[in-house]
Amino acid sequence: MTRSVLAVGAHPDDIELGCGGALAAHRAAGDAVTMLVVTGGQSGPGATAGRRAEAEAAACSLDCLLIWGNLVDCAVNADAATIALIERALEQTRADVVYVHAPDDSHQDHRAVAAATVSAARHVRRVLHYRSPSTTRFEPSVYVDIATHLDRKLDALSCHRSQVESSAMVDPEVVAASARHFGAQARVRYAEAFVPGRFVWDLAPLPVLPDDLVGAGDYLMTRTAA
Amino acid sequence: MTRSVLAVGAHPDDIELGCGGALAAHRAAGDAVTMLVVTGGQSGPGATAGRRAEAEAAACSLDCLLIWGNLVDCAVNADAATIALIERALEQTRADVVYVHAPDDSHQDHRAVAAATVSAARHVRRVLHYRSPSTTRFEPSVYVDIATHLDRKLDALSCHRSQVESSAMVDPEVVAASARHFGAQARVRYAEAFVPGRFVWDLAPLPVLPDDLVGAGDYLMTRTAA
Amino acid sequence: MTRSVLAVGAHPDDIELGCGGALAAHRAAGDAVTMLVVTGGQSGPGATAGRRAEAEAAACSLDCLLIWGNLVDCAVNADAATIALIERALEQTRADVVYVHAPDDSHQDHRAVAAATVSAARHVRRVLHYRSPSTTRFEPSVYVDIATHLDRKLDALSCHRSQVESSAMVDPEVVAASARHFGAQARVRYAEAFVPGRFVWDLAPLPVLPDDLVGAGDYLMTRTAA
Amino acid sequence: MTRSVLAVGAHPDDIELGCGGALAAHRAAGDAVTMLVVTGGQSGPGATAGRRAEAEAAACSLDCLLIWGNLVDCAVNADAATIALIERALEQTRADVVYVHAPDDSHQDHRAVAAATVSAARHVRRVLHYRSPSTTRFEPSVYVDIATHLDRKLDALSCHRSQVESSAMVDPEVVAASARHFGAQARVRYAEAFVPGRFVWDLAPLPVLPDDLVGAGDYLMTRTAA
Amino acid sequence: MTRSVLAVGAHPDDIELGCGGALAAHRAAGDAVTMLVVTGGQSGPGATAGRRAEAEAAACSLDCLLIWGNLVDCAVNADAATIALIERALEQTRADVVYVHAPDDSHQDHRAVAAATVSAARHVRRVLHYRSPSTTRFEPSVYVDIATHLDRKLDALSCHRSQVESSAMVDPEVVAASARHFGAQARVRYAEAFVPGRFVWDLAPLPVLPDDLVGAGDYLMTRTAA
Amino acid sequence: MTRSVLAVGAHPDDIELGCGGALAAHRAAGDAVTMLVVTGGQSGPGATAGRRAEAEAAACSLDCLLIWGNLVDCAVNADAATIALIERALEQTRADVVYVHAPDDSHQDHRAVAAATVSAARHVRRVLHYRSPSTTRFEPSVYVDIATHLDRKLDALSCHRSQVESSAMVDPEVVAASARHFGAQARVRYAEAFVPGRFVWDLAPLPVLPDDLVGAGDYLMTRTAA
Repeated sequence: MTRSVLAVGAHPDDIELGCGGALAAHRAAGDAVTMLVVTGGQSGPGATAGRRAEAEAAACSLDCLLIWGNLVDCAVNADAATIALIERALEQTRADVVYVHAPDDSHQDHRAVAAATVSAARHVRRVLHYRSPSTTRFEPSVYVDIATHLDRKLDALSCHRSQVESSAMVDPEVVAASARHFGAQARVRYAEAFVPGRFVWDLAPLPVLPDDLVGAGDYLMTRTAA
Repeated sequence: MTRSVLAVGAHPDDIELGCGGALAAHRAAGDAVTMLVVTGGQSGPGATAGRRAEAEAAACSLDCLLIWGNLVDCAVNADAATIALIERALEQTRADVVYVHAPDDSHQDHRAVAAATVSAARHVRRVLHYRSPSTTRFEPSVYVDIATHLDRKLDALSCHRSQVESSAMVDPEVVAASARHFGAQARVRYAEAFVPGRFVWDLAPLPVLPDDLVGAGDYLMTRTAA
Repeated sequence: MTRSVLAVGAHPDDIELGCGGALAAHRAAGDAVTMLVVTGGQSGPGATAGRRAEAEAAACSLDCLLIWGNLVDCAVNADAATIALIERALEQTRADVVYVHAPDDSHQDHRAVAAATVSAARHVRRVLHYRSPSTTRFEPSVYVDIATHLDRKLDALSCHRSQVESSAMVDPEVVAASARHFGAQARVRYAEAFVPGRFVWDLAPLPVLPDDLVGAGDYLMTRTAA
Repeated sequence: MTRSVLAVGAHPDDIELGCGGALAAHRAAGDAVTMLVVTGGQSGPGATAGRRAEAEAAACSLDCLLIWGNLVDCAVNADAATIALIERALEQTRADVVYVHAPDDSHQDHRAVAAATVSAARHVRRVLHYRSPSTTRFEPSVYVDIATHLDRKLDALSCHRSQVESSAMVDPEVVAASARHFGAQARVRYAEAFVPGRFVWDLAPLPVLPDDLVGAGDYLMTRTAA
Repeated sequence: MTRSVLAVGAHPDDIELGCGGALAAHRAAGDAVTMLVVTGGQSGPGATAGRRAEAEAAACSLDCLLIWGNLVDCAVNADAATIALIERALEQTRADVVYVHAPDDSHQDHRAVAAATVSAARHVRRVLHYRSPSTTRFEPSVYVDIATHLDRKLDALSCHRSQVESSAMVDPEVVAASARHFGAQARVRYAEAFVPGRFVWDLAPLPVLPDDLVGAGDYLMTRTAA
Repeated sequence: MTRSVLAVGAHPDDIELGCGGALAAHRAAGDAVTMLVVTGGQSGPGATAGRRAEAEAAACSLDCLLIWGNLVDCAVNADAATIALIERALEQTRADVVYVHAPDDSHQDHRAVAAATVSAARHVRRVLHYRSPSTTRFEPSVYVDIATHLDRKLDALSCHRSQVESSAMVDPEVVAASARHFGAQARVRYAEAFVPGRFVWDLAPLPVLPDDLVGAGDYLMTRTAA
């Protein structure tokens, strides 16, 4: 039994910045993970072909499948075509976990991708919004512990050389600092933070180990607090 | 490996109303579950001894441990003594999941128990606020599927005969309706809904089954959306 | 003296789902009620002509006037043309009460219709947002008691046979459950819930009946609480 | 048929400042109105006896009943005793409309009275929070048109001479300005603004007048927007 | 050392209504101020040429530079072209303070201009959202004292004769009332109110005057509150 | 002309954690700064005398005045006595800037000090809420650039040796990470972040330097965007 995860971002590097650590944690747990980059990444610094190669190297380093939406960079609309594009990815991956931009963001493509994904994923039980450097409002309450995955996230980011070198918004030092900041909020060392759109917690039975806290036999008593 | 759950409520029946289905789901998954009723339930309709027996029957029907805080009903403060009471329950149960009232509620005890539990559980990684009939603001984003546990919840509630018969706030028909309402929001049949104070999603590795969606061998390719 | 009500929805059945009970209550109070379906309902399950006939039967069963906007389903924009369409309906009906989708919704048409109606109704004193099954954020504070109108709402919904049979979002059982859920919040048996955009409460003089609580003569005294 | 209104405030002049115009509108509509001042007004500028006489003159000028709670000024708690005090007033007045302070306020008594009233009025269908000069967060959505009642509100306020003369928070000029400000929001000339805690809109049948907008006979047709 | 301010509005008079007093305060402090009207003001009451002349007179009366964006009135989109237009104004003015519409507004152009400006100003350290008569949600926390600038604001507004005479939304009496209302919130006589998108408070060293509160010499002691 | 700043915290080290960098910036700008520790710091790890000495060393290192409120640690109430204590500090310092805990916090003393300070500072024009490690909700919009003051903040924190060594909540590494995280939000290198309760921006005239952006002479022209 594994989960199937679809992470949606507008541009190359958006997904890695927002939830690269969580994706590494999903892969470590044996979950299938697909990244959908909605545009073709035409407008960032550097040549498009180079950006695509960077994104593929990053997906490879995270051991995730990568799908390109090829919409026009900086001109994404949350219209029926964009929604249909994301719906196809949801069908192909049969995803039961979706990661996507937070809705309030200063980049117009991020806003559009967030809105279109909320539309496309209307039947999915787990939709988590990640933070981008351009996100404007973000009050997270769900966290993934990435203490053992932060290096992997930074490795994936470093694949996006053209962005790291030239965009003020992509700074590995800030990424690590934010992971520490959110880790302190989550009471772990490093964390990624999410705003849940809708999150059905799967309380699957776990195997009972011998050192369980409370024995089954003496469990139904009543106590008064000392 | 099991989770340890502490559910905190001000009065007998608060916990069952708010998260009885989730507690049943935790028990079905093999988790240890303790219910802490912070007061002695002195002020509701019916004699106190009767209410205590009802609460013990309800905990028994949910197969959960019950602890009484014995604070004075209708006079709970979110002060150091109440916080210490809850801290002791947290230590005894080594809980890593806490359920408690939502902070905005028209009952003063509910407000106080919510605030005191947030204080006591400041190092716990999962704190989920449940809704009571008297909750005034509640915008949930985390859900537990209770389709197979609703009957158990209603059974537990029915143990609180003195409340069900005389309190306008305790109505099994409304409990079932709300579970259906929140189920539709969660895209399941019946659900309980929660506002996450802080929720670290544990992405534990699950056993890999033979029919996994994507084979490990052909996973790292790149695709373009059709 | 009657109120004039305009209910605006993107598709056939949206209005019935969101505020069908309130519309029945308005009709029972003698108010004029017009339903404006902004699209032609081209994209849902079933043939368009059938959907239109269903919508007309539903409006008929609620004893309301029905106007079709005939915009393209799934492609509504909150632009000047859509706003003008709604403004015309406001002028024709001289509406002083407007019902419309809540702004945060996973359907793009619902978002657009909500935004366009807020623009068009900028001078109207009562704008109430209703909930759809696809609404994502909804914290209601205004309610209409529909205890005596729920059957009428369900009858109107049942006219939309093609939707009830094939859309996971349209489920009469959930509609009744939500009415009970919101009824409990409103302290009535069944209610529809609304988020007020702007609501001027009309404190019209009511006829004074003989059994008024406090006689006019002894009213101006001062008392101290016992 | 009349409404019964209970307005609750911590100190003399709080109610007049917050909802004096709405109370005048209720009286003009024939509703019974009771003002409950929870403290004895001991701590403001001026002698207590004088303040009490001012409050009684103000209630008289609004033609409302006045009840004194006589709790200690600046030391109100939202505890069971305060809640019981307000419950008694609710029982005596059988109020179905309650006005009270907004919950976020820089005065500790205002916060306590708001919380205690929310508790006491848990079964009341209409609870509206008014704004005080010391309110810190206030996003209103319900309004009462006080264009024909502003003078009455200012007259009532002027009865509180000791406050108007010496408190920086009580300034009739600001009261009129705020009424104009909120009036513009409500699309009327002068308004008082409220945050609804819970508001069940009573759609009582109104008498049908001869010049109704739409005749009953030709009402059930279907139209297409031009 | 001076600040450079860019105020962005959709139509002639939007900027004056929203932050005309603050702009006057900036000019009085020696700051450079530029007004960018994003449309050409084609759709309001009155001829376009007249409206442009009015806007230029108003900018002149405020002693500010005026730039016309010339986009089509009532048809502004928050797309790449609009964002680029605002980016050019930011580059030309090297603005470190930006004023713009609040995001929630019943006018579609206001929403679009707010969103596009948030995108364009993503690297600017101070972005303040002002209120328009059509703003729907607005909870301000930053204020500018305009007690000595209100007349200037009203003078600038009065230049927009065609609007003042014919638009229900432009009413100098309401403007003054709102300034008094927000002034009371800000603890000054008249204020304009803003929602900060992002506000870096510049704690520049001020010249030390002889009557400073605390002498440098005796500053490092410790005291216990009496 | 200088500002007078009062920073209020419940315990030793709260103020340094929350706004130590901003206080250093105020001192660098020549402002008077007073720190009010409301309790005596009795309950933390380490002897009380030692904690007091640490707090005094920290205040000394920040070059700020320190006042002790001496209320009982873990038992602070937002009552009239606490409010009066803070009012005395406000009077003594004639503060026009107040820093204090954010209202939503898992420590009961932090909640009480925040509420009492909001009451005491009801006439102050600038009240900024800082974040503590125990803060539960915090959506900042006002920032102070502390790039040149972070070392000073960390030095002050390091004076609180007993806390740094034994409290999981006080971790200089997290403090630096959060400053980087908020710095990225503020578009500076390191920042402290604040939620403004009320912030009147003082647009004092700055001296006009020769290299001002726009000459006074050619300022009143009109331009059309290229």
